[in-house]
Amino acid sequence: MVRRNAFYAQSGGVTAVINATAAAVIESCREHRDVIGRLYAGRNGILGALREELIDTGKIRKRMLTAMKYTPGGVFGSCRYKLGSLEESKAQYERLIAVFRAYDIGYFFYNGGNDSADTAYKISRLGRRMGYPLACIGIPKTVDNDLVVTDSCPGFGSVAKYVALATREAALDVASMAETSTRVFIFEVMGRNAGWIAAAAGLAGEGADAAPHLILFPERAFDEADFLARVDACVRRNGYCVVVAAEGVRDASGRFLSEAGTRDAFGHAQLGGLAPYLASRVKDRLGYKYHWAVADYLQRSARHIASQVDLDHALAVGHAAVEFAVAGENAVIPVIERRADSPYRWRVSKAPLARIANREKKLPAGFIRRDGYGITARARRYLAPLIRGEAYPPYAEGLPKYATLAPELAVRKLPPWKD
Amino acid sequence: MVRRNAFYAQSGGVTAVINATAAAVIESCREHRDVIGRLYAGRNGILGALREELIDTGKIRKRMLTAMKYTPGGVFGSCRYKLGSLEESKAQYERLIAVFRAYDIGYFFYNGGNDSADTAYKISRLGRRMGYPLACIGIPKTVDNDLVVTDSCPGFGSVAKYVALATREAALDVASMAETSTRVFIFEVMGRNAGWIAAAAGLAGEGADAAPHLILFPERAFDEADFLARVDACVRRNGYCVVVAAEGVRDASGRFLSEAGTRDAFGHAQLGGLAPYLASRVKDRLGYKYHWAVADYLQRSARHIASQVDLDHALAVGHAAVEFAVAGENAVIPVIERRADSPYRWRVSKAPLARIANREKKLPAGFIRRDGYGITARARRYLAPLIRGEAYPPYAEGLPKYATLAPELAVRKLPPWKD
Repeated sequence: MVRRNAFYAQSGGVTAVINATAAAVIESCREHRDVIGRLYAGRNGILGALREELIDTGKIRKRMLTAMKYTPGGVFGSCRYKLGSLEESKAQYERLIAVFRAYDIGYFFYNGGNDSADTAYKISRLGRRMGYPLACIGIPKTVDNDLVVTDSCPGFGSVAKYVALATREAALDVASMAETSTRVFIFEVMGRNAGWIAAAAGLAGEGADAAPHLILFPERAFDEADFLARVDACVRRNGYCVVVAAEGVRDASGRFLSEAGTRDAFGHAQLGGLAPYLASRVKDRLGYKYHWAVADYLQRSARHIASQVDLDHALAVGHAAVEFAVAGENAVIPVIERRADSPYRWRVSKAPLARIANREKKLPAGFIRRDGYGITARARRYLAPLIRGEAYPPYAEGLPKYATLAPELAVRKLPPWKD
Repeated sequence: MVRRNAFYAQSGGVTAVINATAAAVIESCREHRDVIGRLYAGRNGILGALREELIDTGKIRKRMLTAMKYTPGGVFGSCRYKLGSLEESKAQYERLIAVFRAYDIGYFFYNGGNDSADTAYKISRLGRRMGYPLACIGIPKTVDNDLVVTDSCPGFGSVAKYVALATREAALDVASMAETSTRVFIFEVMGRNAGWIAAAAGLAGEGADAAPHLILFPERAFDEADFLARVDACVRRNGYCVVVAAEGVRDASGRFLSEAGTRDAFGHAQLGGLAPYLASRVKDRLGYKYHWAVADYLQRSARHIASQVDLDHALAVGHAAVEFAVAGENAVIPVIERRADSPYRWRVSKAPLARIANREKKLPAGFIRRDGYGITARARRYLAPLIRGEAYPPYAEGLPKYATLAPELAVRKLPPWKD
């Protein structure tokens, strides 16, 4: 086998464990020096290839690789940059091949969601068409857990753990103060199209009287009157009500509630978020004192309480991607295959990129309680193993010792790229 | 010494470690059975005394006491119920004494902030005036860290740790995505009058280019033009800007920014929060893509990453309060006295309640950087020891095993109370 170089890029929103995947890719490439020469990482994802901003990972020391395994964010930088069809974005695709050719890149590892799987798939086809041999391997990553084929997505287990834990903690706070203070607490979590993260909050408690009392899923149209009646009934019964809402909750006409037309004093549209909107409806209609929280990036970067199972998945897909490449595979992606719920058993298997590209896995109907405001036993069986184990980072002076990489770029070989 | 009973109540907002203080009070009372007979806890704080809803802590088992040390919220319930002057609230004060008399309460432990110190102080005076001997001992607690005399307040170190850690994690997320996505991240933290919690976020990084790049304190009037110019300069220099804002930031006229007159589509005042308000100003004036987070209760209930030093303080003040009572003290409160910054050394000492009652400690001017948007080396020296050590709770099935108490109320002796 002729030795060729490799390119790795992160794509889209980062997670608490994507750097662990990167570390695994680097380690595995080093174990296969006979097949893979240098491994370059793209600065800011695929933009790094387009701009020829490549980081030679050979210069990364072992201690830094270890640190990457417990550092959230993306140490090489990521980007939101979607390539269009091969026809629309011809210039970009050709530029990618030109850069790959200049660095003799024979292996392309693309670590992202369904968009990235699509891009990797297209590049693999283009390589063939242009007579440039290139093995394109996807690596799954997304807190949204919305990839098809794979049982779960690296990054999801940790955000699920944080959201369930934060719900449990905040609920104890609300419960102890409800008599004279906050009656309704609204916790907005991520999930624009799929309610996986909101569902995970359901692990915080079980039974009709346990928080979270109501979960709002993007998969169910919001019915204000019904919602408010349930909040009211819950407060009357339990003294308080904890609501977890996915950011992507929509009304019956499909409009995001978070864009429900609030305007500031100057008439500007107020991009206010779902939680304050729901809270103001509760206040106006029911009069209860409320509090609300929006975790936003705090949830997906919560490496301090990452799930060990999630970390194990993130490492495993990184290693597997390199093994697939070395074995001569192309246009494939390692996926998590669940063998048993309890005790949880899993392995990494292989799927064609084309099966994952551009498809989105919503929460199955069987995971949402019949009334639409909670999760089923089936959802609990699925979710429970994914949040197991506490993969604590090391601390110094009371704070996690996270790594930062000062990226040294490889010397350019090509003329600059103009988008 | 005649053996008498004791009463313990939690007051105001709960913390990650207030139950640890309660456990310490219970343990210490048990060590002094010769002096203190039964220890009752008020259900929902002082309301429990007024309503004669008393929990006999003698029924709490050792295992539960251990669990209380790592459970956030208030296991007995707390309340926001401020007693007025002895004249205004005469009926309430007399009812308290009546209940105390019915249960032979000789020791009153009140675990709260400066309001509670005031209440405890008043009750101690009233007891004397009414010829009812009662030792009133305050116990400090508040995430706001705004009590005078004590060097720090139990509850603050843990919220400080969480906020610093969350800032560091979110900043890594923003940094890795800024090239094509979010440029400005705004993190709203607690602190209505004092900027202690916002200051703690400053521990996340040091130096002009480290996040958080800008901190907004309640102690400094908000100047929008200056703020936006600094955000813009920061984005141009670093590619992104992380802002931490205390909820109580006000404009030059003293008006909370969070009440800056936003209205929803129906003309209702929108209680939108500071972070979305600041974000919309950044968007309108600078055009940068933004994200924002409001941690709200998530920060003060974040027991999963409590500071060990904070937990040690919380336990120590609980034990000391009982020792003071047993030693015959009255109208005093244990406070944290700092002996050295590095290595951090501290001890519990004793202060008169009257010195703490109703006073509020703001962030000293010497803790705020001259430009008003960051913390000084002096602030770092003060804050750093308070977040040290990770007092992890035990986990089961991926979530912290927090305790819940099914409160069994003592049989009533008095007629019901009408407020």
